[in-house]
Amino acid sequence: MIGNFTYYTPTKLCFGKDCIKDLPGVIGRYGRNVLLTYGGGSIKKMGLYDRVKELLKDFNIVELSGIEPNPKYDPSVITGARLCKENNIDVILSVGGGSVLDCSKAISACAKYDGEGWDLISSKVKAKEALPVVDIITLAATGSEYDAGCVISNTAINDKRGYMDDHLYPVASFLDPEYTFSVNKWQTACGTADAINHVLEQFFADPHSTFNDGVMISALRSLMTNVKIALETPDDYAARSELMYVCSWGCNGILSNGAGYSGWPMHSIEHALSAYFDITHGAGLAIITPRWMREILSDKTIERFVTLGVELFGFDKALPDTDMAEKVIEEFYRFFESIGIPMHLGELGVKAESIEEMADHILENDSTNEPWMYAPLDKNALIRILSASM
Amino acid sequence: MIGNFTYYTPTKLCFGKDCIKDLPGVIGRYGRNVLLTYGGGSIKKMGLYDRVKELLKDFNIVELSGIEPNPKYDPSVITGARLCKENNIDVILSVGGGSVLDCSKAISACAKYDGEGWDLISSKVKAKEALPVVDIITLAATGSEYDAGCVISNTAINDKRGYMDDHLYPVASFLDPEYTFSVNKWQTACGTADAINHVLEQFFADPHSTFNDGVMISALRSLMTNVKIALETPDDYAARSELMYVCSWGCNGILSNGAGYSGWPMHSIEHALSAYFDITHGAGLAIITPRWMREILSDKTIERFVTLGVELFGFDKALPDTDMAEKVIEEFYRFFESIGIPMHLGELGVKAESIEEMADHILENDSTNEPWMYAPLDKNALIRILSASM
Repeated sequence: MIGNFTYYTPTKLCFGKDCIKDLPGVIGRYGRNVLLTYGGGSIKKMGLYDRVKELLKDFNIVELSGIEPNPKYDPSVITGARLCKENNIDVILSVGGGSVLDCSKAISACAKYDGEGWDLISSKVKAKEALPVVDIITLAATGSEYDAGCVISNTAINDKRGYMDDHLYPVASFLDPEYTFSVNKWQTACGTADAINHVLEQFFADPHSTFNDGVMISALRSLMTNVKIALETPDDYAARSELMYVCSWGCNGILSNGAGYSGWPMHSIEHALSAYFDITHGAGLAIITPRWMREILSDKTIERFVTLGVELFGFDKALPDTDMAEKVIEEFYRFFESIGIPMHLGELGVKAESIEEMADHILENDSTNEPWMYAPLDKNALIRILSASM
Repeated sequence: MIGNFTYYTPTKLCFGKDCIKDLPGVIGRYGRNVLLTYGGGSIKKMGLYDRVKELLKDFNIVELSGIEPNPKYDPSVITGARLCKENNIDVILSVGGGSVLDCSKAISACAKYDGEGWDLISSKVKAKEALPVVDIITLAATGSEYDAGCVISNTAINDKRGYMDDHLYPVASFLDPEYTFSVNKWQTACGTADAINHVLEQFFADPHSTFNDGVMISALRSLMTNVKIALETPDDYAARSELMYVCSWGCNGILSNGAGYSGWPMHSIEHALSAYFDITHGAGLAIITPRWMREILSDKTIERFVTLGVELFGFDKALPDTDMAEKVIEEFYRFFESIGIPMHLGELGVKAESIEEMADHILENDSTNEPWMYAPLDKNALIRILSASM
């Protein structure tokens, strides 16, 4: 059963070895004045910065570097928007991972808005337009290269917002798996854990369809198989290419068109963990996943576990449902452990004494206990999940 | 392994019960002057025509009706383009199946071109622009609602062309599964056979990826399961909704991004059959499928059969590969038979004495014997496939 939905992803995906050779033609469609955004030195180390400058030697380039993980409204978005206005920027080129791209998307809307940009990001005001964003993505993880969302922190008011708007779709995303060869083991594991979680947040929903189920299980199988190869052999093109492609499907809805909306509860919990202890997003998600699964296991949800057990892990259909569910939970736990993620929040510096405060924070800032959710979580449930994750 | 590709499908999918209530807002974005295109009386019988007219009562509507299956350049495309020019049409609304939509796409390009429209359709001239096309699709089959192609016949010069251009993507497609409840058993079976063949044309390719394989197998499973339900219970919403959604993925490349391109040989063969004997496209494809499979079965291709056997049909992995391949071929044959398709071309009026001429026609008009193809077919191979299909 496919329920009602609308789906719209106008981003052009340019995928593969040396795909960025087409950059000048794509950028040129939008103008000559380019804001080039990036983070630290990794794109220089891998030679990508020089390649981009060479390819765009006939363009006027203004740079915004130093964009941080968990990108900040102040200074990054504010500075970027100012640079766009001052330099009549036609198009933004984001080079880096999801954080650089998220920041660039926010800049693209704020650059075309005369008021306070945070009003857009906090959805107080709806953007009328945005600058076009083109990106070269260097990390397989968030899927920001193929969706219309970004997550921006405003440290001045202790706020972190997910901002979504159709204007934020990149007009083109360049994905060359070779630029992920140098991603280290920790980031490779955490990026994949993030993508796995994106699938699971959509898999645990009602209603669902046999078609979407199959697509999501194929995504999980590809991610779980190929991350192990990439950890073993970082320059395995086949493995890196599958990770990169599958990650791009994570967040634009294509995995779950017409399925119910779960509310993405694991992301709500992880956002609190990151806010309080600045842990790596994918690691937090991996640690929470099996504990969240155990918390929501019920007569209503058990069918989802059985489908995962049979279709993803190939467990014997004859197993009693509850045994199957336990084996699925155990399998995810062992999988995350096997790719090098410490499976206890304490190992990442999270303090048990903050759990209750975090539970309150989650309920205040996110919707984990709404009756429309697939498996609502009240304060006690959140505390149980967080405590079990320590 | 995901090879190099670009993917771009900017169409907005609006899916579900009564989704067309949003039609005025979507159409209104493009203007007030609408060319309404449709085929025969079926949209009137099901009340869709009246509903559309009521929804668009504030628009200026010019009608082009009587668009035929296998739509013709003359008169349909020529007339439509003239109507657009004479009436300053802003947007085309196609209501019907793939033929009406294909015709409307061709009109959209010809309406913005001052020369002979056939020069566009035959790819002699590249379109600079096209009118926006919105569609309400009433048949789950071709996937035209989500791709940038159309097939147009020019009877004056005995030519039939597949015309593809990024300008031809519908800007929005409305898919309400309830409008397919009245599709009869024959069209339901043939439409699904067409969609199944779209998947198989992409599945038999090299290289391929575990991710795409899983997506395609999920598509095949959904189509093969749900068509049986829809044939039994024509108003089963769950089944009709999956058929409709999965069919829309057939032809825009999303099933096989980064995979090799097979050349779509079964479609090449079927286009000759349709041209000579005007048989139903999906029926022709269904009949050819198992015979084509047997023809291309080789050491190179057998892995594809084994994957289908294990993943789609659940056959025992321990079976010898050749037995597995035979069982897969047999299974597809029986499946098409079970949904009511006569499995011999003779039953559809095809004459054995035309086989050699058709083989020549295929080799002249299509590429089935190119060295880059997954499994090239020379004249003898084409004759064997067609003869076995009688």
